[in-house]
Amino acid sequence: MKEYVSVREVGLRDGLQLVKSILDTDIKIQWCELQAACGFREMEVTSFVPPKVIPQFADAAEVLNSASKIPGLRAAVLVPNLKWGLRALDEGAQKITFVLSISEAHNQANVRRSTDQSISEFSGLVQERNQRGLGKSVSLSVAMATTFGCSLQGKVDETRVYDVANQLLASGADELNLADTVGYGNPTQVKRITAEVINMANEISVACHFHDTRGMGIANVVAALDSGIRRFDASLGGLGGCPFAKGASGNIATEDCVYLLENMGFETGIDLVAMLDVRRMLKSWLADESLEGKLLKAGPAKTF
Amino acid sequence: MKEYVSVREVGLRDGLQLVKSILDTDIKIQWCELQAACGFREMEVTSFVPPKVIPQFADAAEVLNSASKIPGLRAAVLVPNLKWGLRALDEGAQKITFVLSISEAHNQANVRRSTDQSISEFSGLVQERNQRGLGKSVSLSVAMATTFGCSLQGKVDETRVYDVANQLLASGADELNLADTVGYGNPTQVKRITAEVINMANEISVACHFHDTRGMGIANVVAALDSGIRRFDASLGGLGGCPFAKGASGNIATEDCVYLLENMGFETGIDLVAMLDVRRMLKSWLADESLEGKLLKAGPAKTF
Repeated sequence: MKEYVSVREVGLRDGLQLVKSILDTDIKIQWCELQAACGFREMEVTSFVPPKVIPQFADAAEVLNSASKIPGLRAAVLVPNLKWGLRALDEGAQKITFVLSISEAHNQANVRRSTDQSISEFSGLVQERNQRGLGKSVSLSVAMATTFGCSLQGKVDETRVYDVANQLLASGADELNLADTVGYGNPTQVKRITAEVINMANEISVACHFHDTRGMGIANVVAALDSGIRRFDASLGGLGGCPFAKGASGNIATEDCVYLLENMGFETGIDLVAMLDVRRMLKSWLADESLEGKLLKAGPAKTF
Repeated sequence: MKEYVSVREVGLRDGLQLVKSILDTDIKIQWCELQAACGFREMEVTSFVPPKVIPQFADAAEVLNSASKIPGLRAAVLVPNLKWGLRALDEGAQKITFVLSISEAHNQANVRRSTDQSISEFSGLVQERNQRGLGKSVSLSVAMATTFGCSLQGKVDETRVYDVANQLLASGADELNLADTVGYGNPTQVKRITAEVINMANEISVACHFHDTRGMGIANVVAALDSGIRRFDASLGGLGGCPFAKGASGNIATEDCVYLLENMGFETGIDLVAMLDVRRMLKSWLADESLEGKLLKAGPAKTF
């Protein structure tokens, strides 16, 4: 009996937010349908953010509503603050990822408020969900950006990571998502921090979100697996990056992550061959974008 | 006090063997000099093979002789059989890597003889070195290709890996180099096999040689570190591949490997910034080749 590891596709959110070409809404929904058909149980399908800031997500409500109807798929959205979190609640999101940064400099650049203010707004979002009687039918996760370092501020104090995690757990977070936003994490550090946060979180789910900016993304997945992490974000074709990290390549490639996990003896529930077909379609949708990921070029091993 | 990990540059051998353009001899020697100046203590600088088979290495003796004169650098060469091993001895090689494959199919394709015949020829090379009174001044290593799987034969029996390792150790090998020639290895398997071979090898050095064909190369380095491996091959810009593995990308990129190790708290003795300058020169020397590696694009972290 293989152990299940969840791979959550975030290409539609973290990937598309840095892509110049605006993808048609029907293509976005087709993308969700295709990956759900491959066995993905959760996808972050859009961001609820001001359309003036990221025009790519002007169709957020429509994408969320359509994706929420796909059988077997949990459609998650990312929000930058309480105001947009409430909008996501209004639109019936099943899961909301509230993003904040451990680094003050990054939080200010990304969401224009202090990290403490973000923590307080997340707490407000939990209360609002509960007051609406939605309870656990809406899962509230927190993306803890720059947990492993920050390209603006440099070093991020680990004690601050644990302090923020504690506050978020006390606020009622359903999940903590430790994010290496700018690809600063290394396996030694990842193993140490994930082990500590898992220990703090008890029954609360802890996920990881790695970028492959400096080639350590897949190795960081293995380090996090060693600590007991069983939920990973990834982006098809390694799409994505960070607006505050120049030259940064994107998330770990979903196809390489799934291939790693299956080879290590975990069960992802994902049809790899079908996923590689979606990866080829992604290239046709975003012909001008440079995509990453090794597996498509080489193909799965003969023994796979 | 940081622990030292050796990163051995193999781009001039494993990288260049698949490159269409023949690099000028003086450029090859300049490459050796530049990387030695960055702190590399060992490089595999060429192959002693029939020039008709790989014209790139027609200048093998000249490259070896020049590279051997570079202060602080051990210049190693690869040989496919006893005949060319004797040529390397004649030319004064300080280290010879004798390549054989655990997979019979790969050994036949690569060196046109059985694996048992290759083992026997390696034993002959050790005897010849000893009869010439060269002793340990010439180090004899064996590259155990396809240790983690084979793109021709598929699965490779682990008991055969251990059986071959035992025979090579009994023959007097100074080093075993476990090679994932076609990028089939995964971290779970790498950790298991490296631990077992280190246990068998006692005081004899065990190195690893990973390709990043399916995105697991750097993760495999971390798995091997966990077992106690402290010697890795890598290729600048991820140059390389395998003639029998279609679409295969090359070795792990030296720059990404060194960056990983330094970030994990190991000492490589390598000046990363100087190495990235050599990486840029490599691109100018091989303008038509597609190079890999994440670090050059993103640059080292602010905290590095």
